[in-house]
Amino acid sequence: MSIFLVDEYKDMEPYLPGEQPKDKPYIKLNANESSMPPSPRVFEAISKGEIWNMSYYADPHCHEFRKAVAEVYGVTEAEVFVGNGADEVLSFVLMSFFRRGMKIYFPDITYGFYRTYAKTYGLDMEEIPVRDDFSIDIEDYMDLKGDIIFANPNNPTGMTVPIADIERLVKANPERMVIIDEAYADYSGETCLPLAVKYPNLVVVRTFSKSRNMAGTHIGFAVANRDIIEDMNKIKFSFNPFNLNSITMAAGIAAVKDTWYLDSCVKKTVAARERFKAALERMGFHVIPSKANFVFCYHDAIDSGELCDRLKEEGILTRHFADERLTKYLRITIGTEQEMEVVEIAIREILKEAVGEESIDMRLYECVGA
Amino acid sequence: MSIFLVDEYKDMEPYLPGEQPKDKPYIKLNANESSMPPSPRVFEAISKGEIWNMSYYADPHCHEFRKAVAEVYGVTEAEVFVGNGADEVLSFVLMSFFRRGMKIYFPDITYGFYRTYAKTYGLDMEEIPVRDDFSIDIEDYMDLKGDIIFANPNNPTGMTVPIADIERLVKANPERMVIIDEAYADYSGETCLPLAVKYPNLVVVRTFSKSRNMAGTHIGFAVANRDIIEDMNKIKFSFNPFNLNSITMAAGIAAVKDTWYLDSCVKKTVAARERFKAALERMGFHVIPSKANFVFCYHDAIDSGELCDRLKEEGILTRHFADERLTKYLRITIGTEQEMEVVEIAIREILKEAVGEESIDMRLYECVGA
Repeated sequence: MSIFLVDEYKDMEPYLPGEQPKDKPYIKLNANESSMPPSPRVFEAISKGEIWNMSYYADPHCHEFRKAVAEVYGVTEAEVFVGNGADEVLSFVLMSFFRRGMKIYFPDITYGFYRTYAKTYGLDMEEIPVRDDFSIDIEDYMDLKGDIIFANPNNPTGMTVPIADIERLVKANPERMVIIDEAYADYSGETCLPLAVKYPNLVVVRTFSKSRNMAGTHIGFAVANRDIIEDMNKIKFSFNPFNLNSITMAAGIAAVKDTWYLDSCVKKTVAARERFKAALERMGFHVIPSKANFVFCYHDAIDSGELCDRLKEEGILTRHFADERLTKYLRITIGTEQEMEVVEIAIREILKEAVGEESIDMRLYECVGA
Repeated sequence: MSIFLVDEYKDMEPYLPGEQPKDKPYIKLNANESSMPPSPRVFEAISKGEIWNMSYYADPHCHEFRKAVAEVYGVTEAEVFVGNGADEVLSFVLMSFFRRGMKIYFPDITYGFYRTYAKTYGLDMEEIPVRDDFSIDIEDYMDLKGDIIFANPNNPTGMTVPIADIERLVKANPERMVIIDEAYADYSGETCLPLAVKYPNLVVVRTFSKSRNMAGTHIGFAVANRDIIEDMNKIKFSFNPFNLNSITMAAGIAAVKDTWYLDSCVKKTVAARERFKAALERMGFHVIPSKANFVFCYHDAIDSGELCDRLKEEGILTRHFADERLTKYLRITIGTEQEMEVVEIAIREILKEAVGEESIDMRLYECVGA
């Protein structure tokens, strides 16, 4: 630590992203990335001509990209903010609308970065416990005075709050901002996007990192009332005007327009998720019904931390959380059908050692989904 | 403006980047971009395989990229921070080491974004007037208590402060942070980089947007004491851990290693600058001797704002500033030799109208440089 670091950051705990070991090849199912490549249109868009064009600054207003997003989602360009990942978009939301000491509420079980943000911006955060079954009870939030943020579907559970409940929450108090992180909404098929342009106090944040298979491109966007977007752009222009480079925007425009590819990838992931869930249940796992691209599960016969370590030895990365309420569970991202077959085989072998061959269903993965 | 915008941002004036009109083709000499393409190695690096790889998150620690930068500049990875443009790097410096109300000093004539930053972060800024000839007098800064930032070479003048003077300033008070923005240092050939790893209170910021011809890629980096870099990374991980995407880093690694291409482009630009300066002077312009990739100049017979407008009509973008001390001048970025020939022709034609044919030297550009 240098002598210059601002006091309030001295004991800050930065967010810890899922590990990325490089010591051997891994099946990477620990960060809710997609194992499928970006749209073929993205491969076309990043042409030699586009690379040549990199010697000039990209459009800091991101007009073409915002227009493309707006068209696909049936809103206007003025209602769209684009950023360097949903993390940056959320950071600009916090920077624009929250001041030191302000109150923010979020579920105790949700995307861990909200806690990091709250600390970064010196907010007075309060975590609202989810129910024992991990569901969010919207009634807990109805009378709160401060702003509210959560992910829907939620992470790491994959559970959703009904859109009608979110609308009630938004309507209940127009002076309270509600931020819904829809990183996984393409998998649930349920979205607040139409509400974001209907109510002046709802911000919906989306990402290209999951269903558009572009985590490495790191694109996110927000849809909200045009005044909110205007404010966010003002802050962006005061922090880093050129937050998206030209290649990234070319890739983003190509990707967002390819709705056919998006649908096709989402369908494959949802099908693989349901097959994998059934396979886990046959092996005796408890699996929370997920509407995202991951499952959250545990087995009575094996500690989830140990299972995570054993899978890593087998070259499969999954995510185990240390938090008290989560530690019983393991989060496994849904990769391709082929990857999930291999994961099933690996888990079955580990379980065989733990509980003995006779107690688990030995039928192979592919017998079931068909 | 929404009802949610934080009070202190309500009257903020965001930074206004050079305009990017698209109504017709322009020779773009208004934002100090290079007109040359990125290194051929960058075209190779952004392969189809690299695009495929975009479905997975990039390394948030940016190890490979930082290592590549460190090797080229003879420092260690721990002394390098990489970011989404020098603007973001500077933003992380401000965010990490400056708190609301803190004092920051910079010249009254320098990169306009420092003023924006100071407002964004609520700093108590004080602008130190440059001398009448636009040079920075380091003695004005020696006894100041607060932190200091300026560009070297300075923008929009292209003038430099001797490195020995900067070293004296840094040594004079180890509790004061000095931030040197070396966006244009490849053109001057003078750098504080070796000092940045020698003194614990000096941060040097660099960009790929100028001499590496990659403004559209938006890559910047800082070199400083490892404690400072560690602090900045901590803040980055609390704001946007994945600030550089995988394609951008692949491009950056390829570009930074291609020092031969860098040198060759810099030599061409410096040669074009000197030829263009001579041509301007033959036409009667006053030109500040520049060590950057632009010239700052004026002609007694024509208002610089008018010249800027007339050049724009001719499809040539230059930058005219409204600030009182700058408004007499026009900043013209140095493009390729061919572009500068065309600019010279255009300026000569405009001048002919203003002052009459007989009063200007009619010899063509190319007669001179040879």
